Amino acid sequence: MRIHGRQTRTIWLAADGRGVEIIDQTKLPHEFRVVRLGDLDDAERAIRDMWVRGAPLIGATAAYGVALALVGNAGDDRLDEACRRLLATRPTAVNLRWALEDMRRLLSSLPVAERVSAAYARAAAIADEDVAMNAAIGEHGALILSDLWDHRKAQGADCLNVLTHCNAGWLATVDWGTALAPVYKALERGVPVHVWVDETRPRNQGASLTACELKGHGVPHTVIVDNAGGHLMQHGRVDVCIVGTDRTTATGDVCNKIGTYLKALAAKDNGVPFYVGLPGPTIDWTIDDGVAGIPIEERDPAEVTHITGRDAEGRLTTVQLTPDGSPAANFGFDVTPARLVTGLITERGVCPASREGLLSLYPERAPHV
Amino acid sequence: MRIHGRQTRTIWLAADGRGVEIIDQTKLPHEFRVVRLGDLDDAERAIRDMWVRGAPLIGATAAYGVALALVGNAGDDRLDEACRRLLATRPTAVNLRWALEDMRRLLSSLPVAERVSAAYARAAAIADEDVAMNAAIGEHGALILSDLWDHRKAQGADCLNVLTHCNAGWLATVDWGTALAPVYKALERGVPVHVWVDETRPRNQGASLTACELKGHGVPHTVIVDNAGGHLMQHGRVDVCIVGTDRTTATGDVCNKIGTYLKALAAKDNGVPFYVGLPGPTIDWTIDDGVAGIPIEERDPAEVTHITGRDAEGRLTTVQLTPDGSPAANFGFDVTPARLVTGLITERGVCPASREGLLSLYPERAPHV
Repeated sequence: MRIHGRQTRTIWLAADGRGVEIIDQTKLPHEFRVVRLGDLDDAERAIRDMWVRGAPLIGATAAYGVALALVGNAGDDRLDEACRRLLATRPTAVNLRWALEDMRRLLSSLPVAERVSAAYARAAAIADEDVAMNAAIGEHGALILSDLWDHRKAQGADCLNVLTHCNAGWLATVDWGTALAPVYKALERGVPVHVWVDETRPRNQGASLTACELKGHGVPHTVIVDNAGGHLMQHGRVDVCIVGTDRTTATGDVCNKIGTYLKALAAKDNGVPFYVGLPGPTIDWTIDDGVAGIPIEERDPAEVTHITGRDAEGRLTTVQLTPDGSPAANFGFDVTPARLVTGLITERGVCPASREGLLSLYPERAPHV
Repeated sequence: MRIHGRQTRTIWLAADGRGVEIIDQTKLPHEFRVVRLGDLDDAERAIRDMWVRGAPLIGATAAYGVALALVGNAGDDRLDEACRRLLATRPTAVNLRWALEDMRRLLSSLPVAERVSAAYARAAAIADEDVAMNAAIGEHGALILSDLWDHRKAQGADCLNVLTHCNAGWLATVDWGTALAPVYKALERGVPVHVWVDETRPRNQGASLTACELKGHGVPHTVIVDNAGGHLMQHGRVDVCIVGTDRTTATGDVCNKIGTYLKALAAKDNGVPFYVGLPGPTIDWTIDDGVAGIPIEERDPAEVTHITGRDAEGRLTTVQLTPDGSPAANFGFDVTPARLVTGLITERGVCPASREGLLSLYPERAPHV
């Protein structure tokens, strides 16, 4: 997508063909800083310190991290060390583990002399596969937005209002995003989309990252507090909700950033369609009941009691919002039951949020009787 | 209620019997600053600059402001001037207008020489009436909490979890509060209440004022982001919601701080009782359909894009959260339809959120056929 007038991905090979460049997302939206990763240490730091975030982007960064690590020493010990150190940066990230296992399987089967070039090639392929998957989600989702727009236009609307929560845009992936890919693809088809951006407390990924990427790409948008979406839906000012997901159960329950469930309830109450954009690999076929079965991470309460922004002098500053001594709790995610989800937008097409729906797109997952 | 170990109201007559003292609420929770109001100018500034806020407290402050204005000159011109200037500080505040009309009606009928003492006496009575009304809301609500606790205790619970949104506590009134009065009264009865405090973006009255007053009075509480309540209710961690209201329709629709509707939806979805604490005067008998009939104030978008807190050096600092050039919208309130409200807790008792329910408590409002 575009940012500051330039077409870019979130990770790319540097001009010298060795280094890898990323955007330091911790500085967004206040600074756009490109960082060169030159070795394994750099890749480790980029993932651990969340310069890159979003499962697909973490996976691609780890894959490139292995390539960077092998330059100069592509022996088995170094390959082991690279995989071990990179895995330790975000131990619970599923894509990270998957990308590292993929790299290790491929590289350990090759002669040492061939490993470096194979590692760079495979890392590039992992990145490209993510882009292709998200582009496909975008195409399927754009058909939905396009149909909704035909309907709204006939009613005299001047734009199609999409509400999204958190950041499941291109900044969370290598390109296109998941929830936002349909928005970008619909815009290419001429649908005049306007996006209501939930700020998404406590980490404010909406106010910072989603607003930043929509602004960069020139997509009309308005930032709102997380409290506002229900009011907007009551007054017909949201035509469709689209969110991403960290994990979707085999029955279509959707685990996503805390607060998603509240928006799904409001959508249901007001007859607003509620879609989830997701790549097939984020479906967890082992879980049926999302509310009972998915453990919800409790994070540092300081994310609730404190917030960081840019002060009047342009410095990034952290301020405390709560009284000294008032405890806070910080739940990372919630689960939206499938009954509240209009449809799942995957790289293979759109399906109902149900076991039957998912198996119609992923028949290879059907249990063999 | 207690704060910093001392029993206090939000407004009181100073020891010299002339000045009036208030808490500068704009500095909470980071500073507890008592301000003496010595004349009309001070009272004007206190209301206009929101050192005092909350409809009942604004009304009481205006009444005392009239008393302060008349010291030294209690003539008709001065009375007119005081009422005019105080009304202009927050022209849409209903209680402000009501208190000023009440003062003017009483004082203009008295000889000039009697006006000052009558003004102080009437201002004190207005404050006392608010305290009595809130105490009554508290008693009625405490019965509900007490019954819920009997039920939960029998199930093995170790506390009664109440969720509230925004600040409808004693800081918004002269004492006790509306939504929080039942909590304080239930604690007096020995119910072990724990309060989940929605931070309540964008102005964060929950994280600052509600947390501050609960901490000051020694009530166990935990601050959460506005996104978290649905997740907590899904997991049985909220036993009851209680919120305040700015305006309630004749049919029981409840206009309150933006985001209240989302919590009411989650409560309904999870079988959690949802109560609203309100003084009778906030019922608007002229409106039937709250969603269609109550205009929702749009406030300064800077309340969404910027936030103020205490920096590492202890200074109050404002930081920007959004990218330069990303627009924001700021809706002050939303309307919770009566169908989502379990009951209305008033100074006259508890009733269903319906026309019949309200008329059972306020029969004098029934239309004369």
